[in-house]
Amino acid sequence: MRIHIQTGQNMTQEITPDVWQAGLARAEMTDAGLAVSFGAAREEFAAAIGETEILIAGGGTVGKLLPFNAPRLKMLFSTSAGVDQLMPFDWMTPGAVVLNNSGVHSIKTGEYVAMALVMLNAGLPDFIASQHAHKWERHMTPSLRGRRVTVVGTGALGGAAAEQARHFGAIVTGVSRTGAVHPHCDHMLTTDALDGVLPTTDCLILAAPLTSQTNQLLNARRIALLPKGAGVVNVGRGELVEQDALCDRLDDGHLSGAVLDVFVPEPLPPGHRVWTTRNLVVTPHVSAGDPLTYYPDTLDIFFKNLKLWQAGKPLPNLVDTTHGY
Amino acid sequence: MRIHIQTGQNMTQEITPDVWQAGLARAEMTDAGLAVSFGAAREEFAAAIGETEILIAGGGTVGKLLPFNAPRLKMLFSTSAGVDQLMPFDWMTPGAVVLNNSGVHSIKTGEYVAMALVMLNAGLPDFIASQHAHKWERHMTPSLRGRRVTVVGTGALGGAAAEQARHFGAIVTGVSRTGAVHPHCDHMLTTDALDGVLPTTDCLILAAPLTSQTNQLLNARRIALLPKGAGVVNVGRGELVEQDALCDRLDDGHLSGAVLDVFVPEPLPPGHRVWTTRNLVVTPHVSAGDPLTYYPDTLDIFFKNLKLWQAGKPLPNLVDTTHGY
Repeated sequence: MRIHIQTGQNMTQEITPDVWQAGLARAEMTDAGLAVSFGAAREEFAAAIGETEILIAGGGTVGKLLPFNAPRLKMLFSTSAGVDQLMPFDWMTPGAVVLNNSGVHSIKTGEYVAMALVMLNAGLPDFIASQHAHKWERHMTPSLRGRRVTVVGTGALGGAAAEQARHFGAIVTGVSRTGAVHPHCDHMLTTDALDGVLPTTDCLILAAPLTSQTNQLLNARRIALLPKGAGVVNVGRGELVEQDALCDRLDDGHLSGAVLDVFVPEPLPPGHRVWTTRNLVVTPHVSAGDPLTYYPDTLDIFFKNLKLWQAGKPLPNLVDTTHGY
Repeated sequence: MRIHIQTGQNMTQEITPDVWQAGLARAEMTDAGLAVSFGAAREEFAAAIGETEILIAGGGTVGKLLPFNAPRLKMLFSTSAGVDQLMPFDWMTPGAVVLNNSGVHSIKTGEYVAMALVMLNAGLPDFIASQHAHKWERHMTPSLRGRRVTVVGTGALGGAAAEQARHFGAIVTGVSRTGAVHPHCDHMLTTDALDGVLPTTDCLILAAPLTSQTNQLLNARRIALLPKGAGVVNVGRGELVEQDALCDRLDDGHLSGAVLDVFVPEPLPPGHRVWTTRNLVVTPHVSAGDPLTYYPDTLDIFFKNLKLWQAGKPLPNLVDTTHGY
């Protein structure tokens, strides 16, 4: 099996030959039958892709290399959870499967959402602003117990978000395409029932994949359905939100605050209105990554799926290329 | 029994006659035998204190009314957890007991510490500074799993802090005067062994009462024992910290950040160096209060102790006036 690992320019460690060997060892596999090449430059990719049967790379990295011809490709394993940069999948080699890295981000994202929930509930955006104005302005807020949290997207990220919200005693409504029961959600809704829960949502957490159905999901109309004082968290993709409308309703005080990790565009340029929107806390797309564990965990997920694929069994990380996740 | 309730000027609701009656009902008590007066002004206190047998008031409120003569006083129930404003207790009526409000702050303080731990571990102080500079500066951090958290003080606040740190998979060392085993701490130390754990502490949480022993506990020497990059959280009292030394070591980058709820002085005046210390997040002494539940919960604690006191049993909220908590 010819495997090619294409790395991007990333601030975290990538899949090096050492990381690969350690992953093989944890999976109790040998490299017998696996011919692995590594590349970072476009030329290295071009030299390898004609023979590649399994491609391991980030969705963004692959997206920038399109179009290419991969006649022997049987599997694309995306080291990102979102594969929106690769849609539509009309370029894919017929019969090849696409896998994502769902699950690798759960721990860090869960921590981020826990932090964001308390920040918004405890008025931290106000206190950050007061600190910059040298003003000691106290206001007390209730605890998170019994607060109503709505989580859009109940995959690995949304599930981790729901689990943290429940840890603090919030009442959690999950929203997904199917509305299937989720162990960390008190209630489940399908996406087309989202409007009904917004007026009773204290904090809305966006953790959905970006697809044609979720693009601009939180638009101006839906933001207006949230009650005055609600908070918003986004750990999915910037395109899930009508960003200018969100900024408008933060600036006019309808929303009490937002903690956002994803934006349009990324990186945000200097002078962009997002930087100075009232009670908006910006983090630069860092909620999910853990430099100590990201690529080892990625390979654990890859090898688990590889073994199942070789055995002809269902793949937990298989992407439905019709729905895009 | 003559009870006087003296309220201060507070941003939260106080113990009103309605709140008192609801508390009596929850405790399944009647006001038979209880003659209750309420006061907010100094004159109302002066008129009542001569006959008062049980005084219910905040430690700060009582502190400002000292000295006074309370010849019939049998119990002082402080609606604050800390009674440092009342020390030394040389003014107390002989034989009277002092009770504090330990336990009322646990839920909110636990949430605050959970937030502060993730903020410090995830580099939020850096990102807040980057946002103000309009800079998209990414850096990834590991999750809290396996991080080493030291909690100084393992009463109600410290216990809640330890519980949250453990929730995120941190390894928790508790530090208390006695070093007694605590269910949410992996290890326990006595305060005189604190120096030994500081060099391996990723995040230090101060949740101790202010006493002559804990005053300036985290001094310049101990801050230097923390490893480069450590974080500090203070939900106790500002005086637990040598504040200028802490600011110095934040400004020079030895510490990666601090999330502080208590300061010297309070309120912090405009222009104080704390407002602009590098990577210091200021909240204005709000970590503990919950406006919906504070005074109802306070009365539940009071009535629980009152019943035990009337039955001649040990009091869970009894203050050891020698140690000051």
